[in-house]
Amino acid sequence: MEENPALFYGLSVLTAAIAFAFAAYLYFWVKREKVRNARIAEISLLIQRGAETFMRREYRLLAAFAAAVACVIFIILPEPIWHGGVMNNLAMALSYIAGTVLSAIAGRIGILVATLSNGRTAERAAEGIKPAFLTGFRGGAVMGLLVVGCSLLGVTAVLAITGDTTILLGFSFGASSLALFAKAGGGIFTKTADVAADLTGKVELGIPEDDPRNPAVIADNVGDNVGDVAGMGADLFDSNVAAAASALVLAQSLEGTGYSTISMVFCYSFLGLLASVAGIATAKVGKNGNPTKALNSSTYVTTAIFLVLTAVATAVFPGFSWRIWGASSVGLLVGVIIGLTTDYFTDDTKPIVRKVAHASASGPAFTVLSGVSYGFISALPAMVGIAVSALFAYSICAPMGDGYAIFGIAMAAVGMLSIVGMIISNDAYGPIVDNARGLAEMGGLGEEAIRIADELDSAGNTVKAVTKGFSIGAAGLTVISLLGAFMSEVNAALEAAGMPLITGFDIMDPTVFFGTLVGAAVPAVFSAMLILGVDRNAQRMVAEIHRQFDEIAGLREGTASPDYGRCIDIATSGALRELVPAGVMAIAMTLAVGFIGGPEAIGGFLLGNIVSGLLLALFMSNAGGLWDNSKKYVEAGAEGGKGSNAHKAAVIGDTVGDPFKDTAGPSINTQITVVSLVSSLFAAVFAAISVF
Amino acid sequence: MEENPALFYGLSVLTAAIAFAFAAYLYFWVKREKVRNARIAEISLLIQRGAETFMRREYRLLAAFAAAVACVIFIILPEPIWHGGVMNNLAMALSYIAGTVLSAIAGRIGILVATLSNGRTAERAAEGIKPAFLTGFRGGAVMGLLVVGCSLLGVTAVLAITGDTTILLGFSFGASSLALFAKAGGGIFTKTADVAADLTGKVELGIPEDDPRNPAVIADNVGDNVGDVAGMGADLFDSNVAAAASALVLAQSLEGTGYSTISMVFCYSFLGLLASVAGIATAKVGKNGNPTKALNSSTYVTTAIFLVLTAVATAVFPGFSWRIWGASSVGLLVGVIIGLTTDYFTDDTKPIVRKVAHASASGPAFTVLSGVSYGFISALPAMVGIAVSALFAYSICAPMGDGYAIFGIAMAAVGMLSIVGMIISNDAYGPIVDNARGLAEMGGLGEEAIRIADELDSAGNTVKAVTKGFSIGAAGLTVISLLGAFMSEVNAALEAAGMPLITGFDIMDPTVFFGTLVGAAVPAVFSAMLILGVDRNAQRMVAEIHRQFDEIAGLREGTASPDYGRCIDIATSGALRELVPAGVMAIAMTLAVGFIGGPEAIGGFLLGNIVSGLLLALFMSNAGGLWDNSKKYVEAGAEGGKGSNAHKAAVIGDTVGDPFKDTAGPSINTQITVVSLVSSLFAAVFAAISVF
Repeated sequence: MEENPALFYGLSVLTAAIAFAFAAYLYFWVKREKVRNARIAEISLLIQRGAETFMRREYRLLAAFAAAVACVIFIILPEPIWHGGVMNNLAMALSYIAGTVLSAIAGRIGILVATLSNGRTAERAAEGIKPAFLTGFRGGAVMGLLVVGCSLLGVTAVLAITGDTTILLGFSFGASSLALFAKAGGGIFTKTADVAADLTGKVELGIPEDDPRNPAVIADNVGDNVGDVAGMGADLFDSNVAAAASALVLAQSLEGTGYSTISMVFCYSFLGLLASVAGIATAKVGKNGNPTKALNSSTYVTTAIFLVLTAVATAVFPGFSWRIWGASSVGLLVGVIIGLTTDYFTDDTKPIVRKVAHASASGPAFTVLSGVSYGFISALPAMVGIAVSALFAYSICAPMGDGYAIFGIAMAAVGMLSIVGMIISNDAYGPIVDNARGLAEMGGLGEEAIRIADELDSAGNTVKAVTKGFSIGAAGLTVISLLGAFMSEVNAALEAAGMPLITGFDIMDPTVFFGTLVGAAVPAVFSAMLILGVDRNAQRMVAEIHRQFDEIAGLREGTASPDYGRCIDIATSGALRELVPAGVMAIAMTLAVGFIGGPEAIGGFLLGNIVSGLLLALFMSNAGGLWDNSKKYVEAGAEGGKGSNAHKAAVIGDTVGDPFKDTAGPSINTQITVVSLVSSLFAAVFAAISVF
Repeated sequence: MEENPALFYGLSVLTAAIAFAFAAYLYFWVKREKVRNARIAEISLLIQRGAETFMRREYRLLAAFAAAVACVIFIILPEPIWHGGVMNNLAMALSYIAGTVLSAIAGRIGILVATLSNGRTAERAAEGIKPAFLTGFRGGAVMGLLVVGCSLLGVTAVLAITGDTTILLGFSFGASSLALFAKAGGGIFTKTADVAADLTGKVELGIPEDDPRNPAVIADNVGDNVGDVAGMGADLFDSNVAAAASALVLAQSLEGTGYSTISMVFCYSFLGLLASVAGIATAKVGKNGNPTKALNSSTYVTTAIFLVLTAVATAVFPGFSWRIWGASSVGLLVGVIIGLTTDYFTDDTKPIVRKVAHASASGPAFTVLSGVSYGFISALPAMVGIAVSALFAYSICAPMGDGYAIFGIAMAAVGMLSIVGMIISNDAYGPIVDNARGLAEMGGLGEEAIRIADELDSAGNTVKAVTKGFSIGAAGLTVISLLGAFMSEVNAALEAAGMPLITGFDIMDPTVFFGTLVGAAVPAVFSAMLILGVDRNAQRMVAEIHRQFDEIAGLREGTASPDYGRCIDIATSGALRELVPAGVMAIAMTLAVGFIGGPEAIGGFLLGNIVSGLLLALFMSNAGGLWDNSKKYVEAGAEGGKGSNAHKAAVIGDTVGDPFKDTAGPSINTQITVVSLVSSLFAAVFAAISVF
């Protein structure tokens, strides 16, 4: 049966339009509210300008990088230009650029709304939890809707215009390039500022967090936005596009074998966006309600709506399969389960956080040792979950025919990512209310407003753990399907060259094994380079803060203002300087392994990279969240409370965890996707040239 | 060509006899020296008795465990007893018991000599570095010779008697079981005592290390022996047997295909032992010589002799191949290279240790973050080294015919482990001179003796980093060949059942992928359980030390003696209690994966286990060594020296690193081997029964 996906292209564009319209409505809803407190308006503007400075510089660097990569793509991909096919190469290069630009636009507007919402949320907090929650959440939801809308629109446009899924990999690579800059760069920025602000403020000077005398305090608030709003948005844009692209590569290779595979991918994607719109629209807390519950229940609403809508679509549309529906549902449910287990390890009402807090009473070495240990253990359920969902999705779809089993895994990833609009909204809510808390303090809005902002912030932290687990799980499944896409690309190239096809990657083949070992080391080295980058950059900023306190008369007494801009500059230029070597290392290792061992070695390389990447990402994210919440638990009075030895130890644990959970851990996702896409794009080149 | 390995069986037994005779000579050489200082004699005896207590209890628990496992083996392995083949099952069970017993004997005698040597080395230190070095080194060499002699004798005897390499896997599993108890149990013991002694002594009471008023001080010294002498010896006994056993399984499957493969394995093994005998005999320092140089140069001497002897053997014996010689030489050389890169990351004359020391000046969080980062980076060269050596060994041997390529990798592992007698001697030297340093202090032998003992101790630490890197590398290669052995076992079972054979493990097969993800999580969970075990056990011992200071009048003033025995008891019983769940978890996960996914899933499981196990073992061992030496570097005066904030931070780093490098890191090796052997032994069962 020949499928005609035109209907689904149209519905996808329509859904993206609905999402954009809803985002516009929410934007104006947020903007309509007034900021009355002059101090809040002023600081909020400083944060907004700081974020803009970072993003302008970041995008400038990225533009240079993307232009260079686009030239390379134009010359050699999908085939060297001297083999003909100029138009194809041009399409690939343009598609790459479109990927970076669309993601950048989503990030840019998302940041704008987030920095508009923070001050407004702070002021609403003085009126009660209900309006404050709504302002914070709706500000974040704009980002969620834009990211998913842009990615759906981009994927649809590229495929509708070119009809070639290989070109789509170029679009996906563009999204990944941006994510690498946004996530790793933003991650270095945010932790540089956070660590430097804490070290000088809390430790050396003994002034509270968010004290306006600290020159790093605005940079710290900017960091929350560029790291958690823009960075996380770009990361999930990337995962979302990669999941769709790899599913579509596999779908195209299945064309004419009996099912409407391409239509299914699009249908599931836009239904996921529709479900997210519905979930976002229903999110609210009662007058004395619980914001954590509100965030989680809207996630469950979205999940339920998605499952029902896709079931209806499966019943209605010809060429849709209940087996695929099963695979995608398994993916989504496992995503929720991974999120819940993450919660178990990082929630301070559960035993693990309390055990680490208790260990802190014996000194910081025990905070670190117990956090590292539970962090490692926390990786097990998620890894088993991903493994089992892949096994189920594969087994459910295998009876449909050759190639459908791996397509089932790709659809499990699409299912897990279907509610990503909701996930990003929850995520972006976090830094908005975190900023709001600081602004409520700096603007002198009173105890009750701060308490409400605190409650909103704490809900943000709890939900963040869940969404992080979710996004790592989704990345895991996505990359399995990217492995399938890679093999499909290699075989297309081998077939064109009249060479024998690859049927799989045997781990007893030493080139595969070689690739696996090297691939496994890459995420470790990548994350180490980012952490060391944060260290170096924080030291630069600490030196600048010391300089300001030495040179600006009256700063310590609060009669003069610090130079916030210099700290933002340092965080910005340092972050961009430190992220480049790590990114280059990951790409260079991929190319080196490919040219030494050929496609077989790359198959192993991707496997090793996924496996150790997942392990380390889960370990770092969860251990970081665990330390953060242990510190908060001690600060709330446990083990002697603030000022006790347990507290000092818990603060050290939190400082170790900061770059783990906000820089290295979440960047590993992006590293895995970048490496997978580079492999797929160079598949034909590796097949043609390699040493072994 | 039918090969007749009888000659090589004979030569192996002869070489083992030579090694035993030389060990006996060294034993009496050490014993002949007198201990004159009464205090040293007394404490040395306490250490010896403490070690004996631990080993007696450990062996009792092990005997119960081994008896239970032997019964299971008798009933179901190599085939369920109701399928007939009672004699085969009996041979397997007996072979298993022999593996545990031979390793236990080597460990038992080794500990005896080590605890004889420590006091004598301390007294010789008063006479100069030359005699002190010789006493310490020769004490350790007894262990090295016994371990390799016993393993060679055992392997030869089992194969000569049964002629069946599958039975040899039972022997190897016995050695692994013992190693699991000795290495993980000893590792928990030693760090329990170390951490508890430091926490109460240095931190709370402000008394120096090795102060006899501290009730944990003897347990701490006992720990060095049971962890580093007996534990490391059992670990390398295990690796050595596993390398030989997997090479022999593969060799047997190649019988009659043109080369004398079984003979080659035995020949390389006994030539390695002969080379070690020669290397040990030549180790000495000049009057003002450098002990580090002495240890390293005897390693190089052993390496060179082995390369020459095996070249001669290859030229002389018919059916020997230069390609195999090449593969084995590559393995050995890569082992040396891995050792040198480890040294780069952990030697305080090189930049990394100094960077971590410098970071400590900013606080303990930076000590931890920089140590973790460099620890991760340090894994890269070793993993690339193992990957490249496997690739080379495979490529060199592939032209010899089907199956020779993987045999080449096995011979690279045999090559890397050939000089293991020398490696263990260097390793066992470490705790002897470490003990000697404490005894010189406690016995009041004067500044000069302590200085010399310090110099010997520092050489021990440096060399330990190299030998650890070496043993992890060897384990990596060994397990690759165990993967080959596993496939060979599966196919033997499938062939016997008339089912289609397995040709490899394709990573695109979701059962393989499932196994890989689960297998990768196991070393993380295993090491986390051991670290948490150390924490819990150390807390029990701290409570006991507090009790003694509260209840024993005059202890603080030094007029009453502490009850050393209670601390040893706590460390012993706690260690054994904490190691069992970790070991059971690893074995249970293997069986669960095997019964769910069958042999394919186990292939993936082993790959994931090797890859993440190597990464974590290298990370933990190197980060631990790095923190240890950074602390020593600061104590020697850098960054403000003793008492500075940098020193406090470096001490915290060292405390984190202790269970990393001495408990979890080195136990991962054993975990990998245990899991691989369980897989091979249950290969036939998994092939017959599994869900997917």
